[in-house]
Amino acid sequence: MKKALCFFSLLLGTASSLLAEPLPSWNDTATRTAIIDFVAKVTTEGSPDFVPPAERIATFDNDGCLWSEQPMYFQAFYIFDRIKALAPEHPEWKDEEPFASVLKGDIAGSLAGGEKALLAMAMATHAGLTSEEFDEVVGEWLKTARHPKTGMAYNKMIFQPMVELLEYLRANGFKTFIVSGGGIDFLRVFAEEAYGVPPEQVVGSSIKAKYEVRDGKPVIVKVPELDFIDDKEGKPVGIHQHIGRRPIFAAGNSDGDFQMLEWTTAGEGARFGLLVHHTDAEREFAYDRESHVGKLDKGLDEAKDRGWTLVDMKADWKVIYPEQP
Amino acid sequence: MKKALCFFSLLLGTASSLLAEPLPSWNDTATRTAIIDFVAKVTTEGSPDFVPPAERIATFDNDGCLWSEQPMYFQAFYIFDRIKALAPEHPEWKDEEPFASVLKGDIAGSLAGGEKALLAMAMATHAGLTSEEFDEVVGEWLKTARHPKTGMAYNKMIFQPMVELLEYLRANGFKTFIVSGGGIDFLRVFAEEAYGVPPEQVVGSSIKAKYEVRDGKPVIVKVPELDFIDDKEGKPVGIHQHIGRRPIFAAGNSDGDFQMLEWTTAGEGARFGLLVHHTDAEREFAYDRESHVGKLDKGLDEAKDRGWTLVDMKADWKVIYPEQP
Repeated sequence: MKKALCFFSLLLGTASSLLAEPLPSWNDTATRTAIIDFVAKVTTEGSPDFVPPAERIATFDNDGCLWSEQPMYFQAFYIFDRIKALAPEHPEWKDEEPFASVLKGDIAGSLAGGEKALLAMAMATHAGLTSEEFDEVVGEWLKTARHPKTGMAYNKMIFQPMVELLEYLRANGFKTFIVSGGGIDFLRVFAEEAYGVPPEQVVGSSIKAKYEVRDGKPVIVKVPELDFIDDKEGKPVGIHQHIGRRPIFAAGNSDGDFQMLEWTTAGEGARFGLLVHHTDAEREFAYDRESHVGKLDKGLDEAKDRGWTLVDMKADWKVIYPEQP
Repeated sequence: MKKALCFFSLLLGTASSLLAEPLPSWNDTATRTAIIDFVAKVTTEGSPDFVPPAERIATFDNDGCLWSEQPMYFQAFYIFDRIKALAPEHPEWKDEEPFASVLKGDIAGSLAGGEKALLAMAMATHAGLTSEEFDEVVGEWLKTARHPKTGMAYNKMIFQPMVELLEYLRANGFKTFIVSGGGIDFLRVFAEEAYGVPPEQVVGSSIKAKYEVRDGKPVIVKVPELDFIDDKEGKPVGIHQHIGRRPIFAAGNSDGDFQMLEWTTAGEGARFGLLVHHTDAEREFAYDRESHVGKLDKGLDEAKDRGWTLVDMKADWKVIYPEQP
C-alpha cells in the first residue's frame, strides 16, 4: 500500500506539472493563445494537424530572440575584450588596424575597415586555441564581463518568456535548437545552462577546425578560416546540414531570420513562425527598421500576409529577464 | 485500488524490460561483458565513473560497423545504379570517363581515374537535386536495389548485434550518433528506421547546399562542391562541429575510425573504444589488413595497448543480420 501511495503521489506530481499554466511570464494576449493553440493542435493524436514527436523540430535565433543584442551583439563585446586581453602578446597591434582602434577604445574606428576588419578581429579572438581552451576563455569572460547599460552578466540578459517557451515546447515533445548567426562554439559555452539546449542542438556560424596529436595528447584546434555563415539564406542551409529535417516552429527577431521562417512555414501541415519585435525601450530596447543590429524591416512588412506571429515585447511579456536589473 | 493495480503493472512492465537480458544476439563472451560493465560503471550514481546523461554521447561509424561494406561501399552501388538511370539524360556520357566505363559495366575502369573520377561520379549522382528530391531518389533505390552476393536489400544488411547495442545504450541514457565517411544525406534516408538514429544525430561527409525560392516555393538545392570529408582526422572534427562534445563511447571497424576512437578514449574518466573485426567469411565477409574497403591495420596493432575492445564477429555474434539471407 505504501508503494501504491507512492505511485499516486508520483501521478499527482506529474499531473500537477502538466496542469500548471504554461508560459507564466507571458501576458494573456492573442500571442500567447496562438502559441498554445498551435502546440495543442500538433500534439493532439487524431487531430488533422498532429505531428509525431520525432518531427517536432523547433529552431530559435539567439541574438535579439533569446537574449538582448543592443547596443551591439554580445559576441562583439567578447571580441573587443579579448583583443585587449591579448594585446600584451601582440605589441604590433598598437600600430595595426583594426586592433589599434580597439586598444584606444574607438569601436567605430575599429569597424571602419568593414568586413575585412571584422574578420581579422574574429579570427584573432576565435582561432588558434584548442576547443577546450576556447571554452575556458569564453566561460571566464562570461563570469566577469558586464553589460554597459544594465551592469548584468551577458548570460543573465536572456529573455525569461523565451526560456519558458523553449521549456514549454520541450515538455510537449519538441526538440529545441538554436540557429544563430553567432559563433557555434561561443554559443555552446552557455546555451545548455541558459536555455537547456545541449551543444549538439546548437547551429551557428563557424570557423574551420583541425585534429592533431600534441605530445601524445589529441586536440581540436580552431583555425583562422571561415567555414560557414549561418545567417539569412545560410539559416535554412545550416538547418539542412545540421538537423536534416525541416522545423515546424521557428522563432527569430530580425530580417536575418526571414529565410528560416520562410523555409519553416512553407512546409506542409501546421507551422508556426514567430518574430520578437523589440518594442520596450524602458525595460529593454526599442528598435526595428532602422537598427544597425537586428534590423527588422521586411519581416514587419510581410509577417501578417505570411501568417507569422509578432511578439510585442512591451505588451506580451510580463518580465524581460529572469532577474530584473 | 484499480488505479493502484494499474500502477503496479506499469512498474512491473518497466522493471521487466529493464531486467530483460541486454544484447541478446551477442554471445556471452568477454566482449559482451566489457560493454555491460562499462555501461554499469558510467550509469551508476555514486560510482567514481558516473557520467551525467547529457554527457553520454556514443558515436558509431556506419560502413562495416552498422552494416556490411563488401564487395564495395553500398553508396558506391547507389552511384553506379544512379549513373545508369541518368544515362538517357546524358548522351555525352557514352564517350566520357568515368561514366563510359560505368555504362559498360566496367567498375574497375570507372575507378581508373582515381579521386577525380570518384568526385565526378559522386557529384553527378548527389548534386543538382533538391533535398527532398534526393531523399526520394535514394529511398526508391533502397526499395529496389539488391546486394549482388546476398540478394538482400542494402538496408536489411544491418548488423543485428549493433542495432541492439545502439538500443541498449539509448535505454541507458546515451544519445547515439552516426559518424560516417559516407554521405550525410544518404545516411539520413534510412538511419532512423534502420538504427533508431534521427537525422539530426547523423554526421557524415557532405557537399554544399544553397537555399533558393523557385516559383514562390523555397527549396534546398545540393550543389556540386565538396563541403566536408568525415573520415580519419575528419571524424573528430565532424564530431566537434556537429556534436560539440567529446563522446565517451565510439565504435568503428577500420583505420578510418582510428582518430575517432583516439579522440574519444583520450578523454578523462571511463571511455570505451570498440572495433568490429570482420572474421566471419561464412556469414558475412572476412577481411582486415589487406582490404581495399574497411582496411583495419593500425587499429589491429594498437587496439590492445590502447584498451580498445575488438569484436570478433564470428565468435561474439549469434547472428549477423536481423533476417538471414
